[in-house]
Amino acid sequence: MSERKGNLMSVRSDVKVLDATIRDGGLCNNFEFTDEFVTELYKSNIKSGVDYMEFGYKASKTLFDPSKFGKWKFCNEEDIRAIVGDNVSDMKIAVMADVGRCDFKTDFLPKSESVIDMVRVACYIHQIPAAVEMIEYFHQLGYETTCNIMAISQANTDQVEEALTMLCQSHVDVIYLVDSYGSLYPENAAKLAKQYLQFADEYGKKIGFHGHNNQNLAFANTIETMSYGVSYLDATAMGMGRGAGNCAMELLLGFLKNPKYSLYSLLTFVENYMIPLKQSGVVWGYDLQYMLTGQLNRHPREAMAFTADERSDYCEFYKSLLDNF
Amino acid sequence: MSERKGNLMSVRSDVKVLDATIRDGGLCNNFEFTDEFVTELYKSNIKSGVDYMEFGYKASKTLFDPSKFGKWKFCNEEDIRAIVGDNVSDMKIAVMADVGRCDFKTDFLPKSESVIDMVRVACYIHQIPAAVEMIEYFHQLGYETTCNIMAISQANTDQVEEALTMLCQSHVDVIYLVDSYGSLYPENAAKLAKQYLQFADEYGKKIGFHGHNNQNLAFANTIETMSYGVSYLDATAMGMGRGAGNCAMELLLGFLKNPKYSLYSLLTFVENYMIPLKQSGVVWGYDLQYMLTGQLNRHPREAMAFTADERSDYCEFYKSLLDNF
Repeated sequence: MSERKGNLMSVRSDVKVLDATIRDGGLCNNFEFTDEFVTELYKSNIKSGVDYMEFGYKASKTLFDPSKFGKWKFCNEEDIRAIVGDNVSDMKIAVMADVGRCDFKTDFLPKSESVIDMVRVACYIHQIPAAVEMIEYFHQLGYETTCNIMAISQANTDQVEEALTMLCQSHVDVIYLVDSYGSLYPENAAKLAKQYLQFADEYGKKIGFHGHNNQNLAFANTIETMSYGVSYLDATAMGMGRGAGNCAMELLLGFLKNPKYSLYSLLTFVENYMIPLKQSGVVWGYDLQYMLTGQLNRHPREAMAFTADERSDYCEFYKSLLDNF
Repeated sequence: MSERKGNLMSVRSDVKVLDATIRDGGLCNNFEFTDEFVTELYKSNIKSGVDYMEFGYKASKTLFDPSKFGKWKFCNEEDIRAIVGDNVSDMKIAVMADVGRCDFKTDFLPKSESVIDMVRVACYIHQIPAAVEMIEYFHQLGYETTCNIMAISQANTDQVEEALTMLCQSHVDVIYLVDSYGSLYPENAAKLAKQYLQFADEYGKKIGFHGHNNQNLAFANTIETMSYGVSYLDATAMGMGRGAGNCAMELLLGFLKNPKYSLYSLLTFVENYMIPLKQSGVVWGYDLQYMLTGQLNRHPREAMAFTADERSDYCEFYKSLLDNF
């Protein structure tokens, strides 16, 4: 058993906080954020000491019709620059590229011509070879890269080991443990994190954590895995994200001891932009239907349909989940 | 460092689940539950395998005017019996008695004449001598007893050690670690739990945990402390409880592996009674103002006033908390 790094009072200067509000939150509103919203979040993140801000996906315009989504599903260079200019700040800009849903060979400029700093490659565990191809390409272009292995709670231990071996032999900078189904408990999240960290320490990689709040554990799992050495931490304003949402940035910034992080400007943003967004009818966050899919370690799609249909027959829903195991 | 007891797959047959919905939830609605609500919760708890159901407080009728509160603030014997008869079930009945707010020498029957099984004595750490007096009295009457040391996040390590020494020399059965302010993180909750368990193991006592959800950690702290040997676990339906509320029973029952626990009947109760209760305007649960008092390790009273006033100026509220440190 590896030991905890630091304690509840110490500053962990290796920690990097990544705001994924526009990217994961965009899944709740079809990426239709106003420019004002994104600009104010950008400013707020800088003031709060956030290390990376993820602007959205670089999705394929062949697979997805740009007229049917907000622009942050595509993250055109000029759209990001319209918000950040040349990004004269210490905060870095990230975008996500999904394996199989991204035209990566045509849609990325060389880093020297782009305001983007980091490309996060998201994949399921069987897609690691495809992810490695993309990572090597982005690395050659000059970007920092991550590999976000999704739905890790459904992978088996051998698969995880093979995936980590392949990634550690690549040029990836950060490997993310992603609890897509919100089904990990702190105890098994920590166990997985230790497995990742063992590889990371040997090969000089960093490890990140991205949680979902199906069982109200996104924040708990984030700080638990962090305590063993995970250093890239994803969070979103008010936990905005698909289904039950993510680790809330306000919980995370309130927890971290590094004085560079400040809760106050985030609270201002939450009060002025997030609460009105919720009140306007955009739905996310912990609810019983997401708890049930999390407990059963399955994709939240049925819970999302239950939510969209405004159902409240939780017992029938639970029975239907058990019937379709 | 003590080791975890069992793992995420194992049945911990020493675990006892206590439903505190009426008692802690009663703080949200002045204990004004209908008899139907309490009866259905009682039946649901039995079907779900809950081990103890707490019916409310045994508050002093000298200090509190019975006409101004629902009956579960006082838990008259006949009121409990009107719901449970002679309680022909395996589930035990608990009530809470606050140090200094209870006429314990006049308001309790001998256990042989009462349907109550357990009296939980709640106190702050400086009140331990008064708590011990009550515990010995209730023990003499024939009741199981607990001591719930509240606001433990504000006690210092020496105080905790002295309190545990005094309690271990009493006849108390269970000592509860109570995170009244919702300010403990899993890491320090576990550390405190290990301190409690060291005493408990030596003196043959059991340890319980009662969480509050200010930082969305009530469930996480419950299962984390449990993993080291805490065995009495408090939860409430939908987390109903003062301020940010408690550990949600549905999260806990979904987690426990003992087949005696069943989520289904609880879901039925939640659907038929808890959701309508929320919709009727009774307010509890995680919200930013409670997060802030939890992060600052202080009593939620200011956050409760903020909620009651239906304020949403979180930044002003945060500044006022920092001004009054």
